Amino acid sequence: MSRLNRKRTKKAGLPSGSLVYTGERKDEKVSIHVIDYDEQNVTEEDLASVAACIPYRNKPTTTWINVDGVHDAAILERFGECFGLHRLVMEDIMNTDQRPKLEDYGEYLYIVLKMLLAGRNGEIQTEQVSIVLGANFVLSFQEGLEGDVFNIIRDRIRSGKGRIRKTGPDYLAYSLIDAIVDNYFVILEKLGDRIELLETELIENPTQKTVHKIYQLKRELIFLHNAVWPLREVVSSLGKQESSLVRETTVPYVRDVYDHVIHVIDSIDIYREMISGMLDMYLSSVSNRLNEVMKVLTVIATIFMPLTFVAGLYGMNFKDMPELDWRYGYPAVLGLMAVIAGIMLFYFKRKKWI
Amino acid sequence: MSRLNRKRTKKAGLPSGSLVYTGERKDEKVSIHVIDYDEQNVTEEDLASVAACIPYRNKPTTTWINVDGVHDAAILERFGECFGLHRLVMEDIMNTDQRPKLEDYGEYLYIVLKMLLAGRNGEIQTEQVSIVLGANFVLSFQEGLEGDVFNIIRDRIRSGKGRIRKTGPDYLAYSLIDAIVDNYFVILEKLGDRIELLETELIENPTQKTVHKIYQLKRELIFLHNAVWPLREVVSSLGKQESSLVRETTVPYVRDVYDHVIHVIDSIDIYREMISGMLDMYLSSVSNRLNEVMKVLTVIATIFMPLTFVAGLYGMNFKDMPELDWRYGYPAVLGLMAVIAGIMLFYFKRKKWI
Amino acid sequence: MSRLNRKRTKKAGLPSGSLVYTGERKDEKVSIHVIDYDEQNVTEEDLASVAACIPYRNKPTTTWINVDGVHDAAILERFGECFGLHRLVMEDIMNTDQRPKLEDYGEYLYIVLKMLLAGRNGEIQTEQVSIVLGANFVLSFQEGLEGDVFNIIRDRIRSGKGRIRKTGPDYLAYSLIDAIVDNYFVILEKLGDRIELLETELIENPTQKTVHKIYQLKRELIFLHNAVWPLREVVSSLGKQESSLVRETTVPYVRDVYDHVIHVIDSIDIYREMISGMLDMYLSSVSNRLNEVMKVLTVIATIFMPLTFVAGLYGMNFKDMPELDWRYGYPAVLGLMAVIAGIMLFYFKRKKWI
Amino acid sequence: MSRLNRKRTKKAGLPSGSLVYTGERKDEKVSIHVIDYDEQNVTEEDLASVAACIPYRNKPTTTWINVDGVHDAAILERFGECFGLHRLVMEDIMNTDQRPKLEDYGEYLYIVLKMLLAGRNGEIQTEQVSIVLGANFVLSFQEGLEGDVFNIIRDRIRSGKGRIRKTGPDYLAYSLIDAIVDNYFVILEKLGDRIELLETELIENPTQKTVHKIYQLKRELIFLHNAVWPLREVVSSLGKQESSLVRETTVPYVRDVYDHVIHVIDSIDIYREMISGMLDMYLSSVSNRLNEVMKVLTVIATIFMPLTFVAGLYGMNFKDMPELDWRYGYPAVLGLMAVIAGIMLFYFKRKKWI
Amino acid sequence: MSRLNRKRTKKAGLPSGSLVYTGERKDEKVSIHVIDYDEQNVTEEDLASVAACIPYRNKPTTTWINVDGVHDAAILERFGECFGLHRLVMEDIMNTDQRPKLEDYGEYLYIVLKMLLAGRNGEIQTEQVSIVLGANFVLSFQEGLEGDVFNIIRDRIRSGKGRIRKTGPDYLAYSLIDAIVDNYFVILEKLGDRIELLETELIENPTQKTVHKIYQLKRELIFLHNAVWPLREVVSSLGKQESSLVRETTVPYVRDVYDHVIHVIDSIDIYREMISGMLDMYLSSVSNRLNEVMKVLTVIATIFMPLTFVAGLYGMNFKDMPELDWRYGYPAVLGLMAVIAGIMLFYFKRKKWI
Repeated sequence: MSRLNRKRTKKAGLPSGSLVYTGERKDEKVSIHVIDYDEQNVTEEDLASVAACIPYRNKPTTTWINVDGVHDAAILERFGECFGLHRLVMEDIMNTDQRPKLEDYGEYLYIVLKMLLAGRNGEIQTEQVSIVLGANFVLSFQEGLEGDVFNIIRDRIRSGKGRIRKTGPDYLAYSLIDAIVDNYFVILEKLGDRIELLETELIENPTQKTVHKIYQLKRELIFLHNAVWPLREVVSSLGKQESSLVRETTVPYVRDVYDHVIHVIDSIDIYREMISGMLDMYLSSVSNRLNEVMKVLTVIATIFMPLTFVAGLYGMNFKDMPELDWRYGYPAVLGLMAVIAGIMLFYFKRKKWI
Repeated sequence: MSRLNRKRTKKAGLPSGSLVYTGERKDEKVSIHVIDYDEQNVTEEDLASVAACIPYRNKPTTTWINVDGVHDAAILERFGECFGLHRLVMEDIMNTDQRPKLEDYGEYLYIVLKMLLAGRNGEIQTEQVSIVLGANFVLSFQEGLEGDVFNIIRDRIRSGKGRIRKTGPDYLAYSLIDAIVDNYFVILEKLGDRIELLETELIENPTQKTVHKIYQLKRELIFLHNAVWPLREVVSSLGKQESSLVRETTVPYVRDVYDHVIHVIDSIDIYREMISGMLDMYLSSVSNRLNEVMKVLTVIATIFMPLTFVAGLYGMNFKDMPELDWRYGYPAVLGLMAVIAGIMLFYFKRKKWI
Repeated sequence: MSRLNRKRTKKAGLPSGSLVYTGERKDEKVSIHVIDYDEQNVTEEDLASVAACIPYRNKPTTTWINVDGVHDAAILERFGECFGLHRLVMEDIMNTDQRPKLEDYGEYLYIVLKMLLAGRNGEIQTEQVSIVLGANFVLSFQEGLEGDVFNIIRDRIRSGKGRIRKTGPDYLAYSLIDAIVDNYFVILEKLGDRIELLETELIENPTQKTVHKIYQLKRELIFLHNAVWPLREVVSSLGKQESSLVRETTVPYVRDVYDHVIHVIDSIDIYREMISGMLDMYLSSVSNRLNEVMKVLTVIATIFMPLTFVAGLYGMNFKDMPELDWRYGYPAVLGLMAVIAGIMLFYFKRKKWI
Repeated sequence: MSRLNRKRTKKAGLPSGSLVYTGERKDEKVSIHVIDYDEQNVTEEDLASVAACIPYRNKPTTTWINVDGVHDAAILERFGECFGLHRLVMEDIMNTDQRPKLEDYGEYLYIVLKMLLAGRNGEIQTEQVSIVLGANFVLSFQEGLEGDVFNIIRDRIRSGKGRIRKTGPDYLAYSLIDAIVDNYFVILEKLGDRIELLETELIENPTQKTVHKIYQLKRELIFLHNAVWPLREVVSSLGKQESSLVRETTVPYVRDVYDHVIHVIDSIDIYREMISGMLDMYLSSVSNRLNEVMKVLTVIATIFMPLTFVAGLYGMNFKDMPELDWRYGYPAVLGLMAVIAGIMLFYFKRKKWI
Repeated sequence: MSRLNRKRTKKAGLPSGSLVYTGERKDEKVSIHVIDYDEQNVTEEDLASVAACIPYRNKPTTTWINVDGVHDAAILERFGECFGLHRLVMEDIMNTDQRPKLEDYGEYLYIVLKMLLAGRNGEIQTEQVSIVLGANFVLSFQEGLEGDVFNIIRDRIRSGKGRIRKTGPDYLAYSLIDAIVDNYFVILEKLGDRIELLETELIENPTQKTVHKIYQLKRELIFLHNAVWPLREVVSSLGKQESSLVRETTVPYVRDVYDHVIHVIDSIDIYREMISGMLDMYLSSVSNRLNEVMKVLTVIATIFMPLTFVAGLYGMNFKDMPELDWRYGYPAVLGLMAVIAGIMLFYFKRKKWI
């Protein structure tokens, strides 16, 4: 949770534009993958150094450079210089704790969003993806902690199916965003399953652990909401076509991804309302069980206390207790006790306690 | 519940514009029904193939083509080509998990909304209806899981009563939306009945099952709210007459259906507030009953514990207990017990516990 | 409650503009009352038929036609034709389940609002009032279930006091709305009294019935809120003087009634917040009383259980129990018991349980 | 509470513009105080009759007429005529149940706001203050139930300190509003003290009375919020300088008072959130204490019930109970009892109940 | 808490523009530090008197004057005169209870914001910082209760690293705001740690103290929210470049700090939601423990009450109780008791109470 902020404090006190990686430190090499394509040709390349991407700068074809790993300030710095990115953009790429946002720097658009990935034990992990959309290139920067969701797009470019090869970098950027948002539905489905399991647990055997799970889920939904909510504005302003980098034919597609984002947000809100309803249900079930326990106690006590008293009465050692000497004293008392118990049972029956 | 999202994941990873049906798979044949009318004539036809609808494309009369079943991508694809629909529209028609929306594609308007149907055991089912409003035609696409609410409109067209035959496709589209929204009131009434039943149950005999029903109802209302809320904007922007496809004479009717939508939303909100009030009432009634149970226990214990103690006292076997030998020891003790019980009863009476 | 919707379903499936009364059916005759006035003269008349109101159509004087009863479609239909009202207006007049609204039809304004009336046992009843403001006439339509609040206006017209005779139909329409809104304060006052009673009950003797009353009140406030809230917009847009039917001199008066509406809404919101506070207070008082009950039980049990044990100890029949033969065994045990009881009492005293 | 509305009903049914006092009736004389000043001179006067204020109407100096008491319709009526006020303004002045508002009548601005005063036992009282700002005069109308907060302004005018004598009526009106808003902080401070006391009470000794106080405080905060919230808009639109009556040099001062109003609203919201947190804390403390009580009961019962049973066992009168005749039967049983009690105590110790 | 308002009341009744310090009174000397720089040179100076800062007024270089201590009205007054500040600005600087705001006085911008500092025992302290941005100077005023967060900026100016020396006063003002906002993340991280500790405490050993801590945290978050929320608007309007004092090259940096502010607000909201979830979890855990306690009590009572009754039965002294004389009466009764206990234990086992 405080994971969210801890990252930041590494940077407190540094001048703006300082390139400091705030994510979980990684020592692996940064990998830079280039796909360059137009309607006829596709070429792919793994770049060894940043310098090698200079020729792609001004090629008329669409170039997609995907950088896996944003922890190496030196590499990113040269990258930024090569493509003429603002220092603040480079800083934001490395600072993996950004809020989703869209910034228009004239010659390029800078978009930050969150990729959601399900960890091994089902908890949701977020990874920051930065997308830079230029006139003839798209740069994407990932933290590279886990795999990504872009393979389907690579395959589509290679095979040349669909519209992607016939369109420009704006459609590619849209495709990347769409792939990320589509993956949200996978995450949502997993959350939906967990909620359904919790609902069953709540009805069948609610324990204190159930509450912990509810609280855990609530926490994850809060974070999820936070990661997705600003995306709404990002995609909305992308679709308003204020930048000439987004062509008119791409707008309906952006509008489509906007619908998906709204859908995700709606679903998260629905889940949150359900979670709150589940808590109420839990509390009422605890109260109910307490009631049941108390009823058992009360029934037992109410039946046996008078009986024990009567027994104690005739256990007194007074000399002069005529009943003790009666011929049918004992059975009479047993009968009396039976009557008392019967009345009590009848009373509880009528009250529907038993 | 996660039904909402499960559908989507069938599509994750496919390029945009892929026609994949995301609803509950159905193998029945798709049925295509055409009604073509102007003020004088009505002709009806069940089309065997999509090709047969080409002549209707440019007829000056109003043509309503209703497609029952959106699971056959091939048919829909040819449909889309015939009427010049955008691929994304075709995709949205098949993806039955859309949020209600209105999209203006210039030559036609694309409207998605939800038809509500009550299942056998009273739970609410939704079915997606897509309406495409062109210059001289209206296309409607239903999932076709259950019956629809359009028969009354068919009858009205056939009989030529009302304004419908004298007006164009915009009025027809309005009529379809109106029929769907009118049916919401039927659903709301059923919900109202269930709420009233719950209220009675809550006052007369609240159990843990009542809470489950309340939670269930809350869940349905959340989904209902979600299905209806975006419709507000859809109908509102339809009535703003930004598209030339909606004529000025139709606007008051659209405004009227807008009022109905607002009314439905208001009612859902009222129901939700009631539901939350019912939960409070349930919790307080559980607490109350606990209180009552505890009072019974306390009254019984408080009366019999002292009595039993006194009895136990005179059941001790000390040699030297003068009271035991007294002539009236026994009746005196009985009297003492009666006094103790009396005091206790008086105390509880004053406390209004009995 | 579902009263709200039940009405609607009578209409589901009918074409728009169908005149169907959705209120509680009434068989009494519809009464039509006309007051026609200018600064000099007033004439009053009870019309026998709708036809009789045709001459009032174009009279230069101000004509107020009040229709009591909207269940007779035939009468209303002729009315609508006579004054050139849109079919949807006539439909809304008969459909007594409208949301308050203002519709500008150019030649006339159509206003719907709710008259609030207190039923015999204090519950609030709503009656729909439709007002049509034309260039030289005002039509008002009431359900006529109970009396109305317009007598004071009739008296004012007859007596010629105040501004009403010197002004036109816009001032008359304002006066009608003002009379209805003024009456809301009477209803609010009654609600305020009930809330005060509930507060006293809550402090002095809260029972489960109190919760039911709170819930009941909450329900009524929800409905009230719903009936009044849209009025805000109605009066606001009336005061914006977008229609030439509302003259500039009348605007300050409309603004005044707007203030009143805001005031009513504020009061309802205050009441709702109070109601929610009362529920919290109730729950805490139930918890408190439970605490108190449990303390009594615990004190009694904690004192008498050890004593009874001691008594039981010396009631054992072992042969060899030296204490039983001691000279002062009995008083010693009594003393021991007194000490135990004393310690317990001291302990509870210190814990402030007694 | 329903005080809020009760006032209104005195008026229900009267024509608009009827001058009816809706506050707590007062029979004392209305006092009219005039201060007339410019940069050089100040004159003060207590007016005997309304007529005496006519000469002030058109004096070039700044005239401040303060009217203490708004229950005398006759006096107010002549006042209104003298200064050319709209009948609705006069009505609103007398109707002491207004929402704070600003109305621009062209030649003068009419401002209503609430003066807050702390009653003897700390509860907050509101008094309506109406301010009319003209080209060369300021009229202020108070209910005059308690003292006012304007003395400091009178002193400032008399002494000529500060800007007030060098500026016009707009600065005077600002000063009056500022004095009223400044006094809100005094009220807020008193509320803050009460909240702090409640917090201490809540931690040290929460009782049912604490809840009543919390509820009481909540109620007062709701009313306070209602009295201050609309002021935001009033001061904001005053500062927007739409009327030529407010000069540009006064605008920064109005903006300053706007900041204060926002501050007051923020504080009220903070207090309300605290109050709701306190209620949660109270409920949890009640639950905790219940838990504690139940633990004591359970510990006692669990220890003594088995012991009493054992004692009862050997109190049975069977002929053939070998243990009774054993030499060390009695001490053995005592030992057994000690072991049972020990086990129980150990169990509770481990559970941290004792 | 009422600290918030107490300050204000020192001022109630004084004319606007009165310079009264409302913070915690301090007697130390006010220290005035000047840094004057351009791209080539830096000079630093501790001023002995206000008069000494006059030469800096019109120097073409960028001058940053930091005033530590705002309690000396005389000094501030001369300051205000020297730099031509409005009296209301000087008043707001001394009144350390401002809401964050931005005011455009044409020749300079006046910005108020809150510096957050963590006190010794972790509680958050706020200190007001006022920044005046002129054409060639920046004035910063601190309360000077604790250290500040500006040292890093001083170091950057001295060393000439980064952009700061190459840019003007707008970038300096941005840097100050950025330093303050960056420090918020440190505070947030500390809060995050406390929340994590509380979560652990809640799961492992929740006590009434936990609730107090939760309430305490909630209170701090409310205040924090209040201190940061208005900053959003301040920075936003600073970035809208409405004043010519903020150059276009600085705008991206302001936009960056805006992102940070949003981030802080998001985090506070997340924390608040978590806090509310923790309270629910606490309440449910209390209920659960009560349930557990009651189960122990009920199990014990339900087992021993019948046994004790049976023992009491055979402890009665009736002459004629055949069982007492039976050969195996005693073992038979013991067996009966074992059976009863066994049944009870089985019953509870099945109910999962033990």
